[in-house]
Amino acid sequence: MMYSNIPAAQTLVLYFKSKGIKHIVISPGSRNAPLTIGFTKHPFFKCYSVVDERCAAFFALGMAQQLQEPVAVVCTSGSAMLNYYPAVAEAFYSDIPLVVVTADRPSYRIDIGDGQTIRQANVLEKHIGYAANLKQDVSHASGSVSTLGKDLLADTQEDVQAYNEKELAKALRIAFVEKSPVHINIPFEEPLYGLLEEPTVQLSVFEEDKLEASGVKDYDKFAAIWNNSARKMVLVGVDQPDTMDQEVLEALAKDGHTLVFTETTSNLHHPEFFPSIDSIIAPIEKSSDREALFKALQPDVLLTFGGMIVSKKIKAFLRKFQPKVHWHIDPKTAYDTFFCLTQHVKEQPNTFLKQILTPSETESAYKRKWKQAKATYEKGRAAYLEQIPFSDFMVFDEVMKHIPKGYQVHLANSSTVRYAQLFPMHPSLKVLCNRGTSGIDGSTSTAVGASVHSESPTLLITGDLSFLYDSNALWNNHIRSDFRIIIVNNGGGGIFRILPGKEDTDEFNTFFETQHRLNAEHLAKMFGFEYHQASDKKQLLGGLEKLYRESDKPKILEINTPRELNNKILLDYFDFIS
Amino acid sequence: MMYSNIPAAQTLVLYFKSKGIKHIVISPGSRNAPLTIGFTKHPFFKCYSVVDERCAAFFALGMAQQLQEPVAVVCTSGSAMLNYYPAVAEAFYSDIPLVVVTADRPSYRIDIGDGQTIRQANVLEKHIGYAANLKQDVSHASGSVSTLGKDLLADTQEDVQAYNEKELAKALRIAFVEKSPVHINIPFEEPLYGLLEEPTVQLSVFEEDKLEASGVKDYDKFAAIWNNSARKMVLVGVDQPDTMDQEVLEALAKDGHTLVFTETTSNLHHPEFFPSIDSIIAPIEKSSDREALFKALQPDVLLTFGGMIVSKKIKAFLRKFQPKVHWHIDPKTAYDTFFCLTQHVKEQPNTFLKQILTPSETESAYKRKWKQAKATYEKGRAAYLEQIPFSDFMVFDEVMKHIPKGYQVHLANSSTVRYAQLFPMHPSLKVLCNRGTSGIDGSTSTAVGASVHSESPTLLITGDLSFLYDSNALWNNHIRSDFRIIIVNNGGGGIFRILPGKEDTDEFNTFFETQHRLNAEHLAKMFGFEYHQASDKKQLLGGLEKLYRESDKPKILEINTPRELNNKILLDYFDFIS
Repeated sequence: MMYSNIPAAQTLVLYFKSKGIKHIVISPGSRNAPLTIGFTKHPFFKCYSVVDERCAAFFALGMAQQLQEPVAVVCTSGSAMLNYYPAVAEAFYSDIPLVVVTADRPSYRIDIGDGQTIRQANVLEKHIGYAANLKQDVSHASGSVSTLGKDLLADTQEDVQAYNEKELAKALRIAFVEKSPVHINIPFEEPLYGLLEEPTVQLSVFEEDKLEASGVKDYDKFAAIWNNSARKMVLVGVDQPDTMDQEVLEALAKDGHTLVFTETTSNLHHPEFFPSIDSIIAPIEKSSDREALFKALQPDVLLTFGGMIVSKKIKAFLRKFQPKVHWHIDPKTAYDTFFCLTQHVKEQPNTFLKQILTPSETESAYKRKWKQAKATYEKGRAAYLEQIPFSDFMVFDEVMKHIPKGYQVHLANSSTVRYAQLFPMHPSLKVLCNRGTSGIDGSTSTAVGASVHSESPTLLITGDLSFLYDSNALWNNHIRSDFRIIIVNNGGGGIFRILPGKEDTDEFNTFFETQHRLNAEHLAKMFGFEYHQASDKKQLLGGLEKLYRESDKPKILEINTPRELNNKILLDYFDFIS
Repeated sequence: MMYSNIPAAQTLVLYFKSKGIKHIVISPGSRNAPLTIGFTKHPFFKCYSVVDERCAAFFALGMAQQLQEPVAVVCTSGSAMLNYYPAVAEAFYSDIPLVVVTADRPSYRIDIGDGQTIRQANVLEKHIGYAANLKQDVSHASGSVSTLGKDLLADTQEDVQAYNEKELAKALRIAFVEKSPVHINIPFEEPLYGLLEEPTVQLSVFEEDKLEASGVKDYDKFAAIWNNSARKMVLVGVDQPDTMDQEVLEALAKDGHTLVFTETTSNLHHPEFFPSIDSIIAPIEKSSDREALFKALQPDVLLTFGGMIVSKKIKAFLRKFQPKVHWHIDPKTAYDTFFCLTQHVKEQPNTFLKQILTPSETESAYKRKWKQAKATYEKGRAAYLEQIPFSDFMVFDEVMKHIPKGYQVHLANSSTVRYAQLFPMHPSLKVLCNRGTSGIDGSTSTAVGASVHSESPTLLITGDLSFLYDSNALWNNHIRSDFRIIIVNNGGGGIFRILPGKEDTDEFNTFFETQHRLNAEHLAKMFGFEYHQASDKKQLLGGLEKLYRESDKPKILEINTPRELNNKILLDYFDFIS
């Protein structure tokens, strides 16, 4: 075990250890050497080296998402840290405790023309739970610093030490308790490479932080409203598996007056639930009796929990046909997604629902009607699949059906997650997706991060643009041999063809769809992946079979679908089931 | 010609046209459709499609750097824009007018759980010349908006139009006059794809902006000090070629009391100048007579111009052996790089020097001594090159010697630019390097951007990490067939081996040097580059010969150097010439 001889570096490393932050993703650099030394030379920490900071941060995010605990990224000074920002924003809106640690120059060295120097303090402030700007150690200031760094003179080393510990405590409290990303900026003076066998700092002891006790005291009030309402809707966004007790799910499912709409990312399953929201709503949109049907679906009470909602159709519907009452159940955040939020209930959904559910087992006309609609689209979907040619729609059906039980599945953004919502997924699958900002920028890195400590193998399903965007994700020495990628390559941003107003011009193909002829074969070779391609159903089935065989290398299956046809087949599906 | 039917989009597009902002780099998305439509359907604009926003922004930066005019990037809402940030910081510290245009959702849609939505307004504020947050058109607000977007109700459409035009005028003034990057955030309500044949807005006319007249009124005072000083040093950082008149250069060169230290990035050349600063200073550092020699080099007056300084050695020297007087000549910015800045002279260096130079042609002992030192290291370098094995040091010598005259040369950061400084470059070469933040994150994209409109072919010289980091730069349809890349692949961040405190452990190899076995061959195939490799001197010379032959494809020459040896050969060079 060795320590940096810089007290602030020791303090940070020891503090992380005391709080149990174990996983540290380091990008190479010199200014962060005191931290790199501290983390890599201490057996408590598990360190990972990732050069591209954009990938490093998404990789750490994936790990934190999977482990449900804070994971740190560490980089050098300058523009390096700005590459973290896309993942920080995703962490911010997805409540993932990504701990961003950036080495900095001493403040007197900023904006005086030094290399790799920017204004790092608070630079992420719009999307961060807390920004701790640590101070430079007085005891490690060189001669020239004490004359130049005038702001240092006001503090003693004891002041600096106390300040830094307090700031670290605050930042990590917010990471642990609020599950927010936090930023710790730490300035270091040269020399940066000094080592010690024993630390010179001793941490003060801070009180343990606990999550504030639940604020709900009037369950009866909620129960009265809930149990006396005839038309109730539960809508569940992004959530981890197994956050709800089976008895709660059963009670929800049994309730004859409640429709439970689950997104694929909710990881909630019950035969009585409604998992393909768009297949329910699209036929209404297309009906001449639209207004009446939407009114027939409109709930009196809407109860939501989980993170962001993928389905644009349900958002549009509930914004127009608002419930009388909307409760969002979450210990931390409630977004007013439908512009009619009545109450943010600061409680775990499982606890809250246990307290209020007294299911009426009589099935209401409300529930009966929409169960019927569900049965209709399910039959329609099966019939439609029988008659369509090879296309994104068919591919997603087959892909979903063939995922081995128990896999962790990361869905990339844009068309992937939207297609996935149209097909059932086996309850044993754990589904992840970066829905905080819904960016296409880091899905592959996140999936790789989530796979590192997963008990089961991980499958990433992605589109071609999202895959190519984050191709540096494969530049990572921690990719397991059971990691699998399915790329649905439709030669560009196929999703834009679905949008209203699209047209078939050169401009459209270039600037919206960004048509290309690239595939992943060369990247697969470069980064040591086994690679297969499929361009028809037979190849697809063969490819899927090969994909899941055990191997000593990770694998990619790239599926080429017809760029110009996919869109029509998707839109026709909604017509077909209407 | 077609226009978006959204007034704010028309206004922005027409305003860009009126100001002559012609080059628009667009990343695909839906929220920015009104702008994509406006720019691509107007023949005035030249549009480029780049999917990865990190690359798009560096690509635009390179174009702006080469054209010396504002270039715009346009992206959709959400995390997309955060990927612009590394290039924005580079533009900020390099005075490059990158115009960042980000489509946003209306303000009432932010933080309510919509997809691809973050807090975009002012998010780049620490590294931007101006942030214009445009308002949403009242006339394009849908029914639901006028009830929900309460902040809209206070304004009439005329108010919004006037506000937006004023903000656009401010932002673009700063881009043009101060050469700063600016951010324009523009919210759009759906529907986004409406078209019109004629615009509905008419721009107000604003007064033309002019750069403030020079503030220098007392040239005599400067001239008196300059011409009466016995030991003068001129130090020139990053600069465009041809910013100085030949007569000014001759006058500087002739002055018997002045040493002109030029960095490779200064694009200044004269046989009397000192282009390899480190080769002068390293022998002093190693001398037992160090203190006396540094004093013998210490100037009375230091005059600097141009951007950031690469050489760490000259910075360390001048910070310790400060001149009595330091003037930095620049119309906009002066950094106190040596902590002894006496005056920021807000003037073009060429104008200022013309006014004050009256060269004394008698050569002082000061100048004679250091010209002698220069002759010594030049001889030493030649002798050293005769005896060393194949290595980074030898490779850079050969590479520099073989660049065809007139090329534009982009140097990547980290070891590339540092090695390049040790060797002469032909005066006809135009040298570029991202020294604003000195990041390794966007060199390839910047070089591609700089090549698009260059009269001469462009060569990028890069290290392996920097190249791999920005490999998506090659995912670009605008790469010319005469674009050339030389990758000096030393299997990791070789520069870290040069640092004090390095050691040969697994931790060092993994977390500092980030050792790898990747090469660019697969990427070359993927993106249609001709590819050659060289691993010894003979292959290198053959490779260089092939590299510069005309071709219908761009080319990469990858040169493999011995990872563990390079460092020793570089350090020994400084010993050898000492």
